[in-house]
Formats: sequence, structure tokens, C-alpha cells
Amino acid sequence: MKPILTEVITIGDEILFGQITDTNTQWIGAELTKLGIRTIRKSSVGDQRQSILDVLNEATQRADVVILTGGLGPTKDDITKVTLCEFFNTQLERNPEALGFVTKFFESRGRQLTEINARQADLPQNCTYIPNDWGTAPGMWFHENETVYISLPGVPFEMKNLMQYRIIPKLQQHFETPVIVHKIIRTVGIGESFLAETIANWEDNLPEHLKLAYLPQFSQVRLRLTGTGTDLLQLRAEIDEQVAAVLPLIQPYVYGFDEDEIEMVVARLLSEKSWMLATAESCTGGFVASQITKYAGSSQYFVGGVVSYSNTVKVNQLGVKPETLGQVGAVSEETVRQMAEGVRLKLGANVGIATSGIAGPDGGTPEKPVGTIWIACSTEKQTVARLLKLGPYREQNIQHTAVHVLNLLRQVLLDEQ
Amino acid sequence: MKPILTEVITIGDEILFGQITDTNTQWIGAELTKLGIRTIRKSSVGDQRQSILDVLNEATQRADVVILTGGLGPTKDDITKVTLCEFFNTQLERNPEALGFVTKFFESRGRQLTEINARQADLPQNCTYIPNDWGTAPGMWFHENETVYISLPGVPFEMKNLMQYRIIPKLQQHFETPVIVHKIIRTVGIGESFLAETIANWEDNLPEHLKLAYLPQFSQVRLRLTGTGTDLLQLRAEIDEQVAAVLPLIQPYVYGFDEDEIEMVVARLLSEKSWMLATAESCTGGFVASQITKYAGSSQYFVGGVVSYSNTVKVNQLGVKPETLGQVGAVSEETVRQMAEGVRLKLGANVGIATSGIAGPDGGTPEKPVGTIWIACSTEKQTVARLLKLGPYREQNIQHTAVHVLNLLRQVLLDEQ
Repeated sequence: MKPILTEVITIGDEILFGQITDTNTQWIGAELTKLGIRTIRKSSVGDQRQSILDVLNEATQRADVVILTGGLGPTKDDITKVTLCEFFNTQLERNPEALGFVTKFFESRGRQLTEINARQADLPQNCTYIPNDWGTAPGMWFHENETVYISLPGVPFEMKNLMQYRIIPKLQQHFETPVIVHKIIRTVGIGESFLAETIANWEDNLPEHLKLAYLPQFSQVRLRLTGTGTDLLQLRAEIDEQVAAVLPLIQPYVYGFDEDEIEMVVARLLSEKSWMLATAESCTGGFVASQITKYAGSSQYFVGGVVSYSNTVKVNQLGVKPETLGQVGAVSEETVRQMAEGVRLKLGANVGIATSGIAGPDGGTPEKPVGTIWIACSTEKQTVARLLKLGPYREQNIQHTAVHVLNLLRQVLLDEQ
Repeated sequence: MKPILTEVITIGDEILFGQITDTNTQWIGAELTKLGIRTIRKSSVGDQRQSILDVLNEATQRADVVILTGGLGPTKDDITKVTLCEFFNTQLERNPEALGFVTKFFESRGRQLTEINARQADLPQNCTYIPNDWGTAPGMWFHENETVYISLPGVPFEMKNLMQYRIIPKLQQHFETPVIVHKIIRTVGIGESFLAETIANWEDNLPEHLKLAYLPQFSQVRLRLTGTGTDLLQLRAEIDEQVAAVLPLIQPYVYGFDEDEIEMVVARLLSEKSWMLATAESCTGGFVASQITKYAGSSQYFVGGVVSYSNTVKVNQLGVKPETLGQVGAVSEETVRQMAEGVRLKLGANVGIATSGIAGPDGGTPEKPVGTIWIACSTEKQTVARLLKLGPYREQNIQHTAVHVLNLLRQVLLDEQ
């Protein structure tokens, strides 16, 4: 099967000048990869006619699919659409279906359609109109000389929905895409190179059509196994077999599969036991709690937490003994244990987790350098503490600590199953 | 003065396939903009010889400066450097200065230099070696036929330091860059379009060489005024004059200038009064505390906080009255006031802030739809509460609420100055 080659083009001065973060192209690249469609280039150009024409002409020479995002804002509307008309040697025409849609969109919000809004319905004559249920700028699909061109608004929410519900199905209909099966194994607490060494033998013996990628991120490494072929069931069976073969080698580090985040795994384990969690945070300053409460429904297993930045709060709210703080300090095994136990008891939870350390960049001593961080997890049966030796960077220390303390919680929950 | 046109090229399959987030090119674009150097295109290509040659040839036709990042990892080293040699019609040669540097780098870490590591010192003959004090892959500078080519490692930390300390000074020496003055006015709590209307008259009368950009972000809009010219002092005076003219129109919304974040402004106000802050969070789940403690030194003005996800924690840790929760519920003015007062008193702080609302996506009712969020700020003298009516998206609601409650804190601190 010939690979389908795609180029992704973003239009907008604000991206070139670094005023906004472009999250669209990463997302598009990842989605296309899942479909077995290969992104061969990404380009960003400004809101200028000639730049847009240049990049379209170049992409046409290389790609089967050209995806454009952005450049459709209210003040930019004309330049992209007019330039597409010039590129395709056609003209804008008011599309009745698109006009009906825009009219309804504004009516439903109690607003009258102005002429400027109505222009959202002016589309190049050669385009297939792709309705956008999530905003007013329509999607456009062109098919000219064996190449497919797709123009989407740059607002990530609109772009993603249009891709997911309109464009990807249309691409799968238009092209013969290969059968692709992905399986992600999520590990925590083992470095990329050590992981690679551990599974080197297995990796070397993978068949040609199964590819392995290492995706590291804050004390975690995701292993993505991608199979390409023609028979879905056979591919799935092969991947399952390979996963079964590698798991025993790395079991202690594996916390989940595919889209599982460690917060979700912990949430499932807590829910299974009908347990409530409480957090006591010093150096992570609320970050652990905010990671847990990012997920809707977290009130089912999270009772709350205490951010005990000062020693007074550690003593009064968590019951840490003043003499412990006096003798061994806040960054110590004893303190973090008392924090975890204290928050569990004071907040009436089944399990408490705690962090206390020197996040940096200042505050280190020769005995306790920046990056010295204690974590703990306490249940009725046991309290477990661990020492982390991290680096000099505050933000990274906070992120790594959160992952480690959630992983400690996971291990304790499994232990008490 | 002729503008200096730049293209930024990132090399790496992992970027095309959406496996990693490219933060480098946004940063480079923003830094170049500050220097008055115009980015005209950004491109990403894979780790293939022909793709790299193609993009180099195209960029050469348009740009004065071509910046390449990435493609220099241990397994990729050869392809980028060898391709650069092919492009420049030259060969690799072991650079003695680079070799000395790499040797020292490994020796200082107690490791022996292997042949693979030594290859980091093999550079195209026509390049100027740019020492990298932050890693092992060197920077490279080429000057061929009026075009400057710069190759940098893709690790953000190394790339940024190399740019800041080596490349930008060299660019300023090599090119005659214009004098650029930026001033950012930071606003909160006013929408972009309403802000634009408010200052339309002023904006219309800006002289041609002063440009205004609107940079919106979570309930905030940054107004960036950029002046381009030849006389630094005169430009600064002109910008100051324009800022002085616009400020009275938008004063209530302005919280800072340039690099000020709202957390930093609040930190300064607290430090001036030697006040300690405490947080009580329900719907923001620790996010407000984590935003405050992101900054080193926050223990000087932040005593800690309580994440009161359950009503029991609201009652026991914050002293919210059970009858209040029974009568008007957790998402109410009364509750959020008691939370702010309670956390201030219980944690022994001078000022307490609180959030309670329905972050979504579930949990809404006809009277209190998702996005109904109460915030409060309490001092010894007063407790102020406000109702926010936000949207359906959990993550955005949390982020917006954090900005609003920090802004309420700012206003109360100013009020009590």
C-alpha cells in the first residue's frame, strides 16, 4: 500500500511571532499517525497572500493531503479564502447551506446576522462545505488533481471536533488507509535508557511491521507499540502477544495502558475500595491536589487536602509534632510521615499522601540539597515513606514529585487489595 | 533599514508525528520579534537527508537567516551534520576546540570519552564552532552567500541558553538590527473586543511606527505596544507618552506591565504589607495554591491552604456552618465568605481567599448551572465576594477562576493600602 503523505500548514502572524502556542499541529500529527497517514512536513506562514500561495504550491508537489488551519478569524477571513480562490483559479460564492447555518447560529444566540458574519458563508466555488457545529467558520474540502486540500479554523476546540467528526471519516473514505493497531504501555519510575536496556532483547526480536516508540514525560515513559498491516484481528492478536511477552520484564513499573493517566489509575483503585483520599502538600504547594481534581467526578474519592507551607500549618492543621520539626526539620522522613498520617486522620480519609522537600532554586544545604524531597502514604495499616533525589529546577521537581507520590499511592493501594 | 528575514526549521520525526510538543519555535519567534527580526516561515521536517536538503534550499531563497534546531540527538547526529556538509559541499572534520570541550564535559562527570561521544566534535569544515556550556552537542554558525545558517540542539534548555548568550549577540553584531522598544500593559477582567472598543480612538491615532497587539489569555489581555526606529531614547519617550495616554481609559483593569504575572503582583503587594496569605479552595482544587507556590520565595507571603472538596472538610477545617451548607449549599455567597474568613483565621493569615463553584462538566442545576462560581477575599476589615458566570469547560473554569480570585485579592490589597 502506498503511504499517504500529508503536509500541515498553519496560517497566522501570531504563530510566527511567537505570540501564541501552536498546539494544533502536534495534535493533528498524532491523530494522522494513528490512522497510518504520514506527516512529511509542517509549515507556518504569515497572513500574506504570497506566503500562502508559495506554501500551497510547494506542498502540492509533495503531498497527497494538505491541511490548512488558521487564518480564518474575523479580521483575516478574506485573505485565506481569497487566496485559496486564486490558488484554485476560482471565485467566492455565498453557500446557501453555510448561510443557513450561520444565520441559525446567530439566531440561537439572540443576535442578528450582520453582513460581516454572513461572509463566513462565502466559499470558493470548488469546495465541499464542511459544517462546523462548534463555531461559525466552516471547514472546506477541495479535491484537485489527485490532491486533497482541507481548510479548518485555527481555534483548537473547533479544529479538533471538525477533524474528529468530519474530516477523519472523510479521509478514511477517500483513501485506502492501512490497518493500524496501537498499544501503549505506561511506565513510571524507570529511566528511558534503563528501560531500553531491560527490554533490548524483546525489542530486537520484534517483527518488522511492529514498531516501538519511547515517549518520556516527567518520571514516566510510555512505550508505544504500533502494528501496520491489513488484518485487524491478526494485528491485535500479535500486539497482545508481544505485550504479554514484555510485561513480565517491566511489571513493577507499569501503571496502565493506552490513555490511562496515573491520576485515573489511582482514581479507579480508590473507587474499587470505596476509599477517600486526602493530600498534605508542602513543596508541591497544591499541585498534587490540582492534578487529582482536574478530573470530573474526583469528589467521589477525594475529600480534600492541606497545603502546609508554613510549619505552623503543619502543626495546627496536620498535627505534626513541633519537636519533630525542631529536631529533624520539615524536610525529613518523620515529618512527611506525620503529615500523611495527620491529613488522613484530620480530614477523615482512608488514605493520606504527603510531600515535603526543597523544590528550589534556593533553600538547599549541604545535607539537604535542592531536590531533596520526601514523600509518604499512610493508611490505617501502614505508613510508607520514600526519599527522592531530584534536580535543581523548581517546576520540574514539583511535577516529578507529584508523579512519584501518586505512584506510591498506587503501590500502597495495590498492596492492600 | 531592510528587514532581516528569518526561517526557523525544526528537524525530527517525533515533532511531525506529534510525539513531542515543540516549544522551541514559539520561543525563538518571540525572541527574534523583540530584536526586530522578522520570522517569515517555520517548517518541521523529518530526519531524512532529502527532506532536510529540500527545506534548506527553499529557505535559502527567501531568508537572510536560517535557524535549525533538533536532529542532533545521539542517534541522529550523523544525518543532520552530514546533510549540512552535503548542502555546503564540504566535509566533517574533528574540531580541536569542540573535542577539548566534550572531553572536559565527560571528565567533569567522571566518565570516559567514548568514540561516539567524540563524534560530537566532528563539525562541517565551513562552520564557526559555537560552544554549548549546557550540553554536549555544539552550536554551529555558517555564513554562505549572504545567508547565515545556525544549527542548534533541540533540547529547549540548551537551545535557549545558546540563543540568549551566543547567537543573539552574534546576530546583533552581524546585522544592523533596528531599535525596538516593547511595552506590555497587562489587563484582567475585560474582554478583548470590549477593550478594543474602549481604546479604539487612542489606537487609531497611534503613529505608524508604533504597533499594537492584543494577546489574550484566560481572562487576561496583554496589550503590547512595539515601537521601531533608530533612536532608543526617543522611542522610549514616545512609548511612555502613549502608555500614559491610554492608562486612564483602562486603569481598573491594569494589573501590571511587561513580565509581571498576576501572582507576582500579588506577591509584591503582600510583601509590602508583610502580610501572609491563605487559600481555601473548592472548585479550583488546589490550582490557586499551586499557581502561588510556582514562584520561589512564596513561603515569605503564603502560609498555606485548605482544599475543601467535601463539606465535612469545609466544616471541620474551615469552620463553615453546617446550617449554611444545608440552607444555601456549598456554591453560595455565604459559604465562600465563610471559607475565606475561616481559612484566614484557622491558618493565622492576614488575608484569605476562597473559591466554590461548579467547575463541570456535570453537577449543574437550572438555578446553578455549570460555570456558576463564587469567589471571596477576607481581611480583618472586610470580606468581599463575587459571582462568576463562566462556561461549560472544567479546565478553563478552573484557570479563569484562579485569575479572578487573584485579581480580587489584588483589588482588596490595593484598597487597604
